Amino acid sequence: MQKIRLGILGGGGDSLIGVLHRVASFINDNYEIVGGVFNPDWEQNIGFAKQIGLPTNRIYKDFDTLIAEELKLPEAERIQVCSILTPNFLHFPMAKKLMENGFHVICEKPMTNTYEEAKILGALQAEKGLVFGLTHTYTGYPMVRQMREMVKSGALGNIQKIDVRYYQGWINPIIHDKEKRSSTWRLDASKAGISCCMGDIGTHAFNMVEYTTGLRIAALLADLNYLYEDNQMDIDGNIFLKMENGVKGILRASQIATGEENGLAIAIYGDKKGLRWEQESPNVLKVLSDHEPLQIYTPGHAYNSELSLGGTKLPPGHPEGIFDSMANIYLGVARAIRNQHPDSGEYPTVVDGMRGLNFIESAVASHKAGNVWVALDQ
Amino acid sequence: MQKIRLGILGGGGDSLIGVLHRVASFINDNYEIVGGVFNPDWEQNIGFAKQIGLPTNRIYKDFDTLIAEELKLPEAERIQVCSILTPNFLHFPMAKKLMENGFHVICEKPMTNTYEEAKILGALQAEKGLVFGLTHTYTGYPMVRQMREMVKSGALGNIQKIDVRYYQGWINPIIHDKEKRSSTWRLDASKAGISCCMGDIGTHAFNMVEYTTGLRIAALLADLNYLYEDNQMDIDGNIFLKMENGVKGILRASQIATGEENGLAIAIYGDKKGLRWEQESPNVLKVLSDHEPLQIYTPGHAYNSELSLGGTKLPPGHPEGIFDSMANIYLGVARAIRNQHPDSGEYPTVVDGMRGLNFIESAVASHKAGNVWVALDQ
Amino acid sequence: MQKIRLGILGGGGDSLIGVLHRVASFINDNYEIVGGVFNPDWEQNIGFAKQIGLPTNRIYKDFDTLIAEELKLPEAERIQVCSILTPNFLHFPMAKKLMENGFHVICEKPMTNTYEEAKILGALQAEKGLVFGLTHTYTGYPMVRQMREMVKSGALGNIQKIDVRYYQGWINPIIHDKEKRSSTWRLDASKAGISCCMGDIGTHAFNMVEYTTGLRIAALLADLNYLYEDNQMDIDGNIFLKMENGVKGILRASQIATGEENGLAIAIYGDKKGLRWEQESPNVLKVLSDHEPLQIYTPGHAYNSELSLGGTKLPPGHPEGIFDSMANIYLGVARAIRNQHPDSGEYPTVVDGMRGLNFIESAVASHKAGNVWVALDQ
Amino acid sequence: MQKIRLGILGGGGDSLIGVLHRVASFINDNYEIVGGVFNPDWEQNIGFAKQIGLPTNRIYKDFDTLIAEELKLPEAERIQVCSILTPNFLHFPMAKKLMENGFHVICEKPMTNTYEEAKILGALQAEKGLVFGLTHTYTGYPMVRQMREMVKSGALGNIQKIDVRYYQGWINPIIHDKEKRSSTWRLDASKAGISCCMGDIGTHAFNMVEYTTGLRIAALLADLNYLYEDNQMDIDGNIFLKMENGVKGILRASQIATGEENGLAIAIYGDKKGLRWEQESPNVLKVLSDHEPLQIYTPGHAYNSELSLGGTKLPPGHPEGIFDSMANIYLGVARAIRNQHPDSGEYPTVVDGMRGLNFIESAVASHKAGNVWVALDQ
Repeated sequence: MQKIRLGILGGGGDSLIGVLHRVASFINDNYEIVGGVFNPDWEQNIGFAKQIGLPTNRIYKDFDTLIAEELKLPEAERIQVCSILTPNFLHFPMAKKLMENGFHVICEKPMTNTYEEAKILGALQAEKGLVFGLTHTYTGYPMVRQMREMVKSGALGNIQKIDVRYYQGWINPIIHDKEKRSSTWRLDASKAGISCCMGDIGTHAFNMVEYTTGLRIAALLADLNYLYEDNQMDIDGNIFLKMENGVKGILRASQIATGEENGLAIAIYGDKKGLRWEQESPNVLKVLSDHEPLQIYTPGHAYNSELSLGGTKLPPGHPEGIFDSMANIYLGVARAIRNQHPDSGEYPTVVDGMRGLNFIESAVASHKAGNVWVALDQ
Repeated sequence: MQKIRLGILGGGGDSLIGVLHRVASFINDNYEIVGGVFNPDWEQNIGFAKQIGLPTNRIYKDFDTLIAEELKLPEAERIQVCSILTPNFLHFPMAKKLMENGFHVICEKPMTNTYEEAKILGALQAEKGLVFGLTHTYTGYPMVRQMREMVKSGALGNIQKIDVRYYQGWINPIIHDKEKRSSTWRLDASKAGISCCMGDIGTHAFNMVEYTTGLRIAALLADLNYLYEDNQMDIDGNIFLKMENGVKGILRASQIATGEENGLAIAIYGDKKGLRWEQESPNVLKVLSDHEPLQIYTPGHAYNSELSLGGTKLPPGHPEGIFDSMANIYLGVARAIRNQHPDSGEYPTVVDGMRGLNFIESAVASHKAGNVWVALDQ
Repeated sequence: MQKIRLGILGGGGDSLIGVLHRVASFINDNYEIVGGVFNPDWEQNIGFAKQIGLPTNRIYKDFDTLIAEELKLPEAERIQVCSILTPNFLHFPMAKKLMENGFHVICEKPMTNTYEEAKILGALQAEKGLVFGLTHTYTGYPMVRQMREMVKSGALGNIQKIDVRYYQGWINPIIHDKEKRSSTWRLDASKAGISCCMGDIGTHAFNMVEYTTGLRIAALLADLNYLYEDNQMDIDGNIFLKMENGVKGILRASQIATGEENGLAIAIYGDKKGLRWEQESPNVLKVLSDHEPLQIYTPGHAYNSELSLGGTKLPPGHPEGIFDSMANIYLGVARAIRNQHPDSGEYPTVVDGMRGLNFIESAVASHKAGNVWVALDQ
Repeated sequence: MQKIRLGILGGGGDSLIGVLHRVASFINDNYEIVGGVFNPDWEQNIGFAKQIGLPTNRIYKDFDTLIAEELKLPEAERIQVCSILTPNFLHFPMAKKLMENGFHVICEKPMTNTYEEAKILGALQAEKGLVFGLTHTYTGYPMVRQMREMVKSGALGNIQKIDVRYYQGWINPIIHDKEKRSSTWRLDASKAGISCCMGDIGTHAFNMVEYTTGLRIAALLADLNYLYEDNQMDIDGNIFLKMENGVKGILRASQIATGEENGLAIAIYGDKKGLRWEQESPNVLKVLSDHEPLQIYTPGHAYNSELSLGGTKLPPGHPEGIFDSMANIYLGVARAIRNQHPDSGEYPTVVDGMRGLNFIESAVASHKAGNVWVALDQ
């Protein structure tokens, strides 16, 4: 099968997100990186391309040149899809121009800086019928997919309670240092949007809830945490959730949970069974029951759903990690580009991106209005 | 050393709480059970006394007789302290009359049905100078005590975030059955007070926060969950917390967390270190740091605090369980009765009971007022 | 029900084993401690009795006096059973004399110093028909009992592999110090018998294998570890096992496994299912299957066997610890004394003691003969 | 930097090992797959190349043709290194011919079928000075590397005890079915060599011991398990180890450990500290101490060694899996091919392969001679 021609925007140098996307694009033999713009600085741009062993003829000096030059190529050679790994504020203009010119898009999150922008991309994607993949990486884990399928199959009965958290501690050395907290771009509302913690990781937790339960969050009530009066951006917070069907939930996110590394975890309780999963042990899915022994589901076993098994490449007992998870997202996008009708659970779309921004803006609004309920668009 | 003469009220027959208190009273060689009232039915009362091998001469037909008869005995023979293990609504009148007649009290939680009653007991205890122990059993665990001491010593730096939960799933078969949920006393506000979940287990979570952090909760904002319109009592809920010094926290409690058994857990994050503990693995205390390896503290090691070591009887690696934890509470009460000036962390007092009721009533008030902040008495 | 009159030999002062036995005797309301000899020194003996609140009239100056004086009492008042908690070399003469005079016995392990002595006790017990309980404490855990019952029920299919270990690290500071290792009684063959590690903890591992599998070990091949040439006693070792039906196993024990606390663990693999259990998380039993999710069994659930549930006093989620486990052994002995026909799994008997000594002597013989197979008595 | 030109032998179709090697070769941007022979069947061979998007001009009909045609190419275009993923019996002739013709080699394990063959490859590699990487994948995990470095640094003190196991259960459905066990190639000594369990996974455990401790195994005494009389090949076994400096150890491997998936685990105890690691939670390294809290080391933190950090691509909390581990081996080989003087811990060499075969043959010899000690070449 011919590989899909992939262009990369950003992600050069020491970028971790760059490594992650390149590896993910390779893992299932679907993509070939044919060009891109790794860096605004030409020397670094071309140097990086050489360093990772790419031919340099389609490394462009900037994004606009990439669009212009690629459009001159015959369609059978042209980049089909671009991965946007640039700073957040560039996501919107790049994704917009790419779709306007007929390119599929893979975009890092947050999709845009504002819900307004997100809705524009959503409308454009709907109009053009292009594939738009948003890399909520964690939904690519086999056991996250298994959760979704178990909920959908009715194995949990009616969902009655949802609990999600995303705890990190990395902002401690910045937030407690007056100098640093006033000079970090992530805490500068003019550069990073209206939220730090909810925008960066709360939105992953939000997406995880909607992905696994198949339910939309209808309204929220937020209490955010700024820690210092001179700090404009939340670095921690708790949010009550009300799902579309009235089920209640709680979302917690923090960047000051000292010693926590990347603590995304979700628990979903139905009237028959419960589920618990933690990102730091991604291959373990706990299935809880009131009257039966706790069960531990692991990837690759025949008892898992098709969607889950489709994201497993190795036999049980061989740990799959974050590259595999991202690779599963890329696989879903590839199947969409090839019109292979992927399941709605195979990759997050522009709609997920719109909802993410709706969430972030609602969270901040709820807090600022004095901890009141705010409804989300449905 | 002469043993303390202990009377027992309730806890006969198959009562689990009865076993727990009797064993706890024995474990550190401090108490002798000399009499009590195990059951309102005389045959069952005296039968139970015989079954557990007690002399029957001080088994009384009812509580009032116990008080009257014991007061006739010389002080050196008289019951010194009574454990109240009766249904909740009896806690208040029994505790009141006991103290009025000069007896020390050990009382199961909830201390009373209302905050009003709790304050009366508080005033009485202060006036009489008697020992009043409230059995928030979980604070007797060596590693819970270690948390308290580590916070106090400054090992965590300034506390900046608190997260506590208490999740169970036992009410599922009741709450989802219309017949059962209308006939269970715990869901009947006229018998069980204004709250089911927050009253029963939320109050343990509340106490755990104040015990370990040494900080008082100043205000809360609650969202409770009733699941059915015909159900009067919360069976789940999430509560935002504001501590006396402004630190924010989240408290979650549930009786519909399907498959959860007795899931009390707390995380405390300071600007230097974090702590995590779970009741179901009570001998494991995780000490988190941003830049050093996670440390696992276990009981009995010399690196633990004096308060923690005082609650450990066996060498490292020998699991201590719930009997030991309750026994530690009894030990604290014994030391208080003997005027051995126990540390304030050795047993929960009437003040803890007052705060618990203040919490429960505030939680329901916050929810009913439409999820608004309610201040607690300080 | 009248309590069983219990005498205690040894276990005074700071003795941990003393605490453990006293608490265990209390927990199920079966025993009353009526007398004993806590210490060869009279002041300490009587002082300790007072400290733990015992009447002093039946505290005797030595073991022979206890026997003589108790025999003068009417049978209905006389001590019925004695717990032997004295140094190892006294186990044999005390147990022998007790049984010769019609007393039941509870004995700490190792039962005796030699297999020869063990066989004498075995013959005597058989002849007299008295109850002899050996405190292999770990077999009292509910989930250990559950293992035994699952094997017996055929849930594992045919057993095909056994793996047991008991790892501790406590001897490090002694064994690496020439002075200390030559002056510690446990490393002195004239005082502690022919084995340190296998005698002290290997025998627990051995008993655990026979208890849970219901199979006898038929032969072994040992490689022991002495670490220093001037050290006479094994402090670590590995032993191949052959069960009576030919199944193979491995037993590992160590006192130099640095940082291990009390690491007893067993895995049993049948052709249908496998089981794994660890003493440091005694309430967790893992049930493994090739094609189904791992199951976690915990105590107190209706899915457990009767034998297991008989050792659980509290609801699921309330950790039971080492006191409870020992208490279960005491309960089994009480039921035997009362002729309540306890299940063979309720307490370890003199036969278990004989097998333990047979094991220890065979282990040392196998090693000393150059790592050859040695058959055990069947 | 120019990519290293890689050829692949075998690993086509559904081969899992094929996926693993291709992904690993990509992850660090060092290799370009330029050709190979995926399958003896031409249609499948060329079909697979197309499926994974490779140019087909250097897909050859067989191994000999590959050698012949590649040698005709100028050196700057020629394949530099070949990965041998073919059935075991082809490893030896292919590796031999590759090295004779100046190609570097990456070889799946077992390196050869016999120790004799292994020594021939060892001599050839030494003579030619080519790079020979043997894919003992598990040594590529960051925390395995950390173990090695901690031992080397003296953090453990003197090693005094070693315990390694590799438990799987996959052979159950084959071994218990007479038909299947007589027709499976892995249980056919004429095809798979003299050992099944020790050859397939025992050798990984053996390599793990020597890799992490830096000590050579000097002698062993084995007890292997065949389960049925008509079965020629061990499917389980226990082996006593004696290290070059006299330290004792135990190695256990099984394919009948029902329900175990890929249970490789090692414990190393020194007189100062102990280490424990399990492959199924590869990012967790436990550092044990007698008097300090257990420490949990995880990848990516600055407290890890350089060798460990060199194998980590993402921040703490992002799980790395088996692809990353294999990729680290490929990175080590790439550095060797480029003469970047890799640390001896970066990839397993032909010497490791020789030792592995020496181990397997010694294990079987020890067992067959009646469980006697057999010395290994040093």
